[in-house]
Amino acid sequence: MQEFLPPRRLLLGPGPSLVHPRVLRAMATPLLGHLDPAFLTVMTDIQTLLREIFHTNNRFTIALSGTGSAGMEAAIVNVVEPGDAVVVGVNGVFGTRLATVVERCGGKAIRVEAPWGRIIETAAIEAALSRSGPVKAVALVHAETSTGARQPLDAVGALCRTHNALFIVDAVTSLAGIPVEVDAWGIDVCYSGTQKCLSCPPGLAPVTVSERALETITRRRTPCQSWYLDFSLIAAYWEEGSRAYHHTAPISMVYALREALRLVEEEGLPARFARHRLNSAALVAGLAALGFTLLPPAGRQLPMLTCVTVPSHIDDAVVRAQLLQAYGIEIGGGLGPLKGKVWRIGLMGESSTEANVLTLLNALEEIGIRSGWLSTPGVALQAAARAYSHTPLEKDGV
Amino acid sequence: MQEFLPPRRLLLGPGPSLVHPRVLRAMATPLLGHLDPAFLTVMTDIQTLLREIFHTNNRFTIALSGTGSAGMEAAIVNVVEPGDAVVVGVNGVFGTRLATVVERCGGKAIRVEAPWGRIIETAAIEAALSRSGPVKAVALVHAETSTGARQPLDAVGALCRTHNALFIVDAVTSLAGIPVEVDAWGIDVCYSGTQKCLSCPPGLAPVTVSERALETITRRRTPCQSWYLDFSLIAAYWEEGSRAYHHTAPISMVYALREALRLVEEEGLPARFARHRLNSAALVAGLAALGFTLLPPAGRQLPMLTCVTVPSHIDDAVVRAQLLQAYGIEIGGGLGPLKGKVWRIGLMGESSTEANVLTLLNALEEIGIRSGWLSTPGVALQAAARAYSHTPLEKDGV
Repeated sequence: MQEFLPPRRLLLGPGPSLVHPRVLRAMATPLLGHLDPAFLTVMTDIQTLLREIFHTNNRFTIALSGTGSAGMEAAIVNVVEPGDAVVVGVNGVFGTRLATVVERCGGKAIRVEAPWGRIIETAAIEAALSRSGPVKAVALVHAETSTGARQPLDAVGALCRTHNALFIVDAVTSLAGIPVEVDAWGIDVCYSGTQKCLSCPPGLAPVTVSERALETITRRRTPCQSWYLDFSLIAAYWEEGSRAYHHTAPISMVYALREALRLVEEEGLPARFARHRLNSAALVAGLAALGFTLLPPAGRQLPMLTCVTVPSHIDDAVVRAQLLQAYGIEIGGGLGPLKGKVWRIGLMGESSTEANVLTLLNALEEIGIRSGWLSTPGVALQAAARAYSHTPLEKDGV
Repeated sequence: MQEFLPPRRLLLGPGPSLVHPRVLRAMATPLLGHLDPAFLTVMTDIQTLLREIFHTNNRFTIALSGTGSAGMEAAIVNVVEPGDAVVVGVNGVFGTRLATVVERCGGKAIRVEAPWGRIIETAAIEAALSRSGPVKAVALVHAETSTGARQPLDAVGALCRTHNALFIVDAVTSLAGIPVEVDAWGIDVCYSGTQKCLSCPPGLAPVTVSERALETITRRRTPCQSWYLDFSLIAAYWEEGSRAYHHTAPISMVYALREALRLVEEEGLPARFARHRLNSAALVAGLAALGFTLLPPAGRQLPMLTCVTVPSHIDDAVVRAQLLQAYGIEIGGGLGPLKGKVWRIGLMGESSTEANVLTLLNALEEIGIRSGWLSTPGVALQAAARAYSHTPLEKDGV
């Protein structure tokens, strides 16, 4: 079997995003044992940096040994016991998955639904809490990667406290791209993934858990169904002074995450958020010039994941295949009911640059000219350039 | 926060083992999307190479997105439904963990116990099967990493078929270090880890599942409690022609595993097994000269993980700390009831070399001379040299 030589790819899909060369290099660092004092300092560093990005003081702030989906499962199975009711916002693939995970651990999922692309209204969550009996938790997806919708969260934490429910948030796609204010918003369990706006390879799930949630977990009547994802066991490995063996940590991924978090710290969150907004605005302007419309309504759109309806004159599968094969550009298609209908374009972390926006728009224009659905070259690029020139202040952060 | 600069370490503990520079370099490969056709070929390559190492034709042969412990949990939660009885061999940490995982998913663990360091006798398994009602599975640890015991497996598969039970085997530490004959031994679910004899960083769990086990899984009355580890969903992603999105694969770890498996293929399994036997024999001879005795009885010892009783004149914690701090050598201490009593020295994959055996023995001799418990320098090295010189034929594989 030959050496694997990957084709060159510009990753502008729903993740993984492009990875900084420093992060790739960090993974090539020789391994340490998972109980080596030198490795334990790496874990402590990661906890420190994650607390900054999550905006939290939570002691339990760690990187779980699995992808973002493992983070989701961990959040649910640690909190939910058989028979517990959980209010779940369902407006896309990941809300749907949350409800499934609740049911798989014997919980009752109270689905609060909205059309794909729309948000879950706080009033609907409140109504569900009011008409249900005791609810163990409310679970919402901050950035619904299947639709590009940005879920408001700031009013839900208080609501959860009123109803004595924990607040679980999926921040897989949002973390480090838009503000995730764990403490200020009263989030009790928040999980993310590494391969989105953190621009680290997939394989770890950053997770933070409030003291309030830890108390609930301590008072469980039944043991957590998952041994691998059991927060009480994992805490013993991550806590300074304890560091008890649970499972072998994925050393190289932990190296990668430390370096990715260090890059986030160097840029600074405000500049990083501004960069995501700026490039998104330019992309959206360019796509609009080509006839694409955004799926989520104004004010509810994610800057790191732009979900647009593909106009009827464009063949979804053909154009995405051309982008990949002729230009080496990956963008995402629609999932579930949106299959064939939308594109999901990610400008996450390292992928969010002016060069990438212009490269993608230019490739689309070239395909459009050759396919006959575009007559004037440069319209999309011009629209993007106008967006860039109209946002001089935010550009400081680029 | 500064760049992380790891100390130099010789990894001779119970894993992670040393990683070949080619594997480290493979991880620095730029990322592809998890649905990119070029990435799907990497997955197919891994399946092909894993089938060779597992000695199986199983269609379902994959690398799970978690460490070896996730492989254990996946093996159990996919097979076991609430109320199912599972016969579990318990003679160390990992058998104990298997029983816990069975109970956490509502199964009944029928523990067949043996003292730590001993194997589970086939007759004891047969007795447990005969006196119990229907048993869903028998679960055994091939290489008990906490004790260094090598569990015979070849007679258990037929026994399982007689009793209509599935045969689950933990091959975390054994795979690619000693033969693991999945098809010939009638193993139905076999899982491993990457950081032992495969010499790949931790983070993935190779898993293979027989058609017989897949049929049992298809006939489940209840859905698998874990969404993340659900084989039926994972199969849809790994199967050629399907490749349905389940979760984002840990791309860089998959690159690493492909390269590690390629190195195993280049060496060849017989040569690799011989190398593990040879270096283990030399290590054991050297340790015996220093007063260490093997915990498992003759014929039941693992070549990749040597578990020795620490003689009373040697201070476990002090000497291990000296090895780490002054020599950069990591070896493992005892777990549970063996804490403070044994050392676990791993010669796994890339760590299994003549140079590493000699380096460790020499370091121990130096410590012994300085501490006063050794008077003649070179006794351990001499014993090791004798072992090497007495095994000329096997040395061909080094």
